Amino acid sequence: MGRFIQIVEVGPRDGLQNEKTVLEPAVRADFVQRLEAAGAKRIEAVSFVHPKYVPQMAGAEEVMAALPRLEGRSRIGLVLNGKGYDRALGTAVDEVNVAMSATDGFGLKNQGLTVDQQVQMLADIMAGRANADGAPGATPKLSATLSCIWGCPFDGEVSVQQVGDLVARIAALGVEEIALADTIGVGDPWSVTKKVEAARKAAPDATLRLHFHDTRNTGLANAYAGVEAGVDVLDASVGGIGGCPFAPGATGNIATEDLVYMLERAGYSTGYDLDALIETARWIGAQIGKPNPSALSRAGGWPIRSAS
Amino acid sequence: MGRFIQIVEVGPRDGLQNEKTVLEPAVRADFVQRLEAAGAKRIEAVSFVHPKYVPQMAGAEEVMAALPRLEGRSRIGLVLNGKGYDRALGTAVDEVNVAMSATDGFGLKNQGLTVDQQVQMLADIMAGRANADGAPGATPKLSATLSCIWGCPFDGEVSVQQVGDLVARIAALGVEEIALADTIGVGDPWSVTKKVEAARKAAPDATLRLHFHDTRNTGLANAYAGVEAGVDVLDASVGGIGGCPFAPGATGNIATEDLVYMLERAGYSTGYDLDALIETARWIGAQIGKPNPSALSRAGGWPIRSAS
Repeated sequence: MGRFIQIVEVGPRDGLQNEKTVLEPAVRADFVQRLEAAGAKRIEAVSFVHPKYVPQMAGAEEVMAALPRLEGRSRIGLVLNGKGYDRALGTAVDEVNVAMSATDGFGLKNQGLTVDQQVQMLADIMAGRANADGAPGATPKLSATLSCIWGCPFDGEVSVQQVGDLVARIAALGVEEIALADTIGVGDPWSVTKKVEAARKAAPDATLRLHFHDTRNTGLANAYAGVEAGVDVLDASVGGIGGCPFAPGATGNIATEDLVYMLERAGYSTGYDLDALIETARWIGAQIGKPNPSALSRAGGWPIRSAS
Repeated sequence: MGRFIQIVEVGPRDGLQNEKTVLEPAVRADFVQRLEAAGAKRIEAVSFVHPKYVPQMAGAEEVMAALPRLEGRSRIGLVLNGKGYDRALGTAVDEVNVAMSATDGFGLKNQGLTVDQQVQMLADIMAGRANADGAPGATPKLSATLSCIWGCPFDGEVSVQQVGDLVARIAALGVEEIALADTIGVGDPWSVTKKVEAARKAAPDATLRLHFHDTRNTGLANAYAGVEAGVDVLDASVGGIGGCPFAPGATGNIATEDLVYMLERAGYSTGYDLDALIETARWIGAQIGKPNPSALSRAGGWPIRSAS
């Protein structure tokens, strides 16, 4: 077995939140379980955002209640602020992911906070966790995702320096896993290498994770560059579904099955079952009423086999 | 200006030959000229194959007759054998590309020749060229494309050793440019690095060129790996149209506009005008009656701008 690359499945959150069709919590819990059966060990299962802004994510508590804890599986809940974090603590999520932005423009649009205000928000959450440390198991793991690392639809370019500075601030708060996100899919693989190197220098002890969208077809090239730069954790969405409701022009995440194919064909191990993933991509496509954009669900894997 | 990457536009040949809609020679000549206006310096303009097998490529002579020679532009004609080569010599093509296969299975299906027979066919063509050397300008430049380098729909895996051995045989015949093609889009970027290295070792004096299909969404990752391995010449098809009629499951080439975006965003220069390319992708989509699969023609470039 080759080097293990962990793929965090984000279809139930980043995937579904940008689809027009709103799925009931029971269907979303079913989706999570199908993905886990296909090999997903970490899943972004829910988002604790206000249903007024993202109706697709309403009923996070119901989704989590429908998911009995499962050994070796970690369900992640996304939060945008302290209020969302407190909601997450009331559920059985194994991890919390705090979403932030590298730019004021996107931060204000997405969660009403500048970068400085977001860092303060995260600092408050981290302080609360430190105080709660007497109760082991009470605090789920925490990661932070920094969006717009490769460019912002409102503020434009984001420099390597900006990325390093922000990552250093986040790491200084004690965050153990930091995800760099190309929210609008404008990155190129050469810039991935540079920004991963800057982030590693800024946070040598943190785990780095990468989150790519395939908006301009560079998603897998960026993933490859990230793996070559030593990153072992990548986000992907089954079927390539999704996007971001507040990022104009954004399309889906890189498709889990496409990423699994590329990695496993090269001898890396992912723990996923490609056929089961393609089957799940078909299933969620039927739920949201449209074919999904992944290449593997159309072309099938290797040796040449039709996916139909 | 960064390092220059030459993109050989293959839309009028590899693109159109797999489309159901058959375009008249006049429309195909128009297509070539639109691409040249968008920046294409080398174009696979025609294919000298029998119209019974590939009706989309019928009338290569008419296409070439409609294209007055243009300084700094090179029109390439694809041939599968000596008969096609002789036809090419009767036209104004600036270059001839001899298509071959790395495997017997594909070679027999595509042109009725085993690998050994194809090498002999190329040797005969090269011998004829050597004899014609007294007439300068009478012989167009020649390159060879080796298909199925990353896998064959009939014979399965193709090893690094096989690639090196075949490239050495082709280079020994005096071929100055050798293209490695992932005809069915099964390659991964790590294997691109390995096979490019093997090819360079086998043919240190030849120019290497790469030809990728995006069937499994790895096309741009493979292109990136190729550029990182030092290759300066890549094939692409505007709009990502096309495929191969004799390769089951194959879909379009990597899209020229997607490749241009990835390269130019990273500071490489290509000589193409991205907006004009997107416009041409739209135009050819209208001619063949379907939207093209490229990401850029949907998402637009950077800074964020709609392509519509």
